[in-house]
Amino acid sequence: MKQYTKPTVAVVGATGAVGRTMTQVLEERDFPVGALRFMASERSAGDQVSTKWGTVTIENLETADPGGIDIALYSAGAARSRAHAPRFATAGAVVIDNSSAFRMDNHVPLVVAQVNDAAIEAHDGIIANPNCTTMALMMAAGPLHGAFGLDRMVATSYQSTSGSGRRGMEVLRSELAALGAREEALVGGGWEDPGNDLYARPIGYNVVPLAGSLSDGGYTDEEWKLVNESRKILDAPDIRIEPTCVRVPTMVGHGMAASMWFDRAVALDEVRSVLSTAPGAQLWDDEKVPTPLDSTGIDDVLIGRVRETVGDPGGINLWVVGDNLRKGAALNAVQLAELLTVLA
Amino acid sequence: MKQYTKPTVAVVGATGAVGRTMTQVLEERDFPVGALRFMASERSAGDQVSTKWGTVTIENLETADPGGIDIALYSAGAARSRAHAPRFATAGAVVIDNSSAFRMDNHVPLVVAQVNDAAIEAHDGIIANPNCTTMALMMAAGPLHGAFGLDRMVATSYQSTSGSGRRGMEVLRSELAALGAREEALVGGGWEDPGNDLYARPIGYNVVPLAGSLSDGGYTDEEWKLVNESRKILDAPDIRIEPTCVRVPTMVGHGMAASMWFDRAVALDEVRSVLSTAPGAQLWDDEKVPTPLDSTGIDDVLIGRVRETVGDPGGINLWVVGDNLRKGAALNAVQLAELLTVLA
Repeated sequence: MKQYTKPTVAVVGATGAVGRTMTQVLEERDFPVGALRFMASERSAGDQVSTKWGTVTIENLETADPGGIDIALYSAGAARSRAHAPRFATAGAVVIDNSSAFRMDNHVPLVVAQVNDAAIEAHDGIIANPNCTTMALMMAAGPLHGAFGLDRMVATSYQSTSGSGRRGMEVLRSELAALGAREEALVGGGWEDPGNDLYARPIGYNVVPLAGSLSDGGYTDEEWKLVNESRKILDAPDIRIEPTCVRVPTMVGHGMAASMWFDRAVALDEVRSVLSTAPGAQLWDDEKVPTPLDSTGIDDVLIGRVRETVGDPGGINLWVVGDNLRKGAALNAVQLAELLTVLA
Repeated sequence: MKQYTKPTVAVVGATGAVGRTMTQVLEERDFPVGALRFMASERSAGDQVSTKWGTVTIENLETADPGGIDIALYSAGAARSRAHAPRFATAGAVVIDNSSAFRMDNHVPLVVAQVNDAAIEAHDGIIANPNCTTMALMMAAGPLHGAFGLDRMVATSYQSTSGSGRRGMEVLRSELAALGAREEALVGGGWEDPGNDLYARPIGYNVVPLAGSLSDGGYTDEEWKLVNESRKILDAPDIRIEPTCVRVPTMVGHGMAASMWFDRAVALDEVRSVLSTAPGAQLWDDEKVPTPLDSTGIDDVLIGRVRETVGDPGGINLWVVGDNLRKGAALNAVQLAELLTVLA
């Protein structure tokens, strides 16, 4: 696999919630940027953004020339990835794509940095960044699968509004204001639906047990991603997974409650031992249970509430939470870019 | 079992979130109250409350004479129930207790109205109202258990702050204001913990995956209630249950995601058929997924997202949400009082 020295990096979707975090993470990690380019929709084209490597003028993705780009970090939605990532790859860039467009493509590696790094070797110009919810869960499930062989899992999510981009956070903010103005209606009923175009029901003071769009079998696309991407990342197509994806009224940080059973019965001590040394993860004890707010702005995924199962003995119940803009998206993309780069 | 005509009813803990809803539900359902008495802590004693049956002066529970009370609806916490419910029962009242004090006592029926009504017959002066989270789940699990025999279940909750009483809602309101004032910290980190004495971590813009107090095996008391109360209500001590109880930033309405497997494989159609006729429940389709806000202020528990399992075929994944102040507490208590009463 080719490795770059001081690559030219493009951030595509640079004005979105994930795109902004990508730039921030490149800066924080002192990524050896040779040159930096920003691309976004026509609306933002021409705007200037100040970065550690100088001022960057945003280019219109539709008309941008991909010539000279070594690594393109894409977070502009699946439709734009489908339309533009192949032409970037053809022009010689390696595309690290945060959308769902290519994740299940057999020729595209789906990589969680620090979990299945070796898979990146087989890339053919496009590498996929996993779904943000799946990614957080894999930081715990990956090491446990390596140690004990994951057999089956029930996973239930608590996904933040930033998982829907900046618009998700705007909807939460405006609905909290609108609904909060009449608190008696939140207690006794009679609230008025503020109406939003993003979620099936209001998200302010509420949870919406339908994250993503309805798809096969009554599951959402988000739930199918959790099943199919987990199997691909762990290279274990037979793992049995029950997914439920729920949106909650938080800004950042995707949580997951998971019950896991393995090829053999596991004990609490050996599970804690594996998780306490899992790279990119922190194992917290029950006295300071990790929450979405705790995960916000940090790189590590947080693991807590580790318990031996009580219904079907031999398994484990646990909780994982991670910053969906960082490990769930931007950080992992930059970590994959680092695997492609000769670091100092 | 003795049935009353126009009983004298006492509401104990009349000023709390559940106590207020008890009075409201008695009024809404036109309960045949003969006389009404209110009891609370000394702080509220002497206050007057206007009701459908006239103005009621709040009595001090510590010194109140239970003589003449037929039915006492208790929601004043487990400690006060332990201290006072027995003397009310000895004086001739039937106590319907919303606390956890007597739920697992062999001589105390634990009854979800419309699920296991017959159990109430065996009461000996005290009847227990189940935990609010368990109750909502039982409205779906009860009928399914009756039809197919529930074998195992993974249940994960989304519990509202009113489950901690009025103080819970106050904490949410104040933390939303404090944390919301610095939105950039909610996105990028650096928020300041407002500090609260109720939950392990902040609840505003957050979820706290630890509802209740830590108990055996790393599970909370709330999680053990879900296991033990479900088994008692369904009269099925061998049901295997994995519980995870999580507090979310909502005011009212407890949601649960559950995976269930039965004594035999079930198909979606037969499960929907049972749930669509379940008393006290509404089965919603996926186009209008039921949320905590939808459940607020209504009596029915709402069921949605019913899907055949995809990991371990033959089971069902579903979502249940109910108003924890109503079916989860006050409504069920009044429904139990109705079973003790000759209704017109």
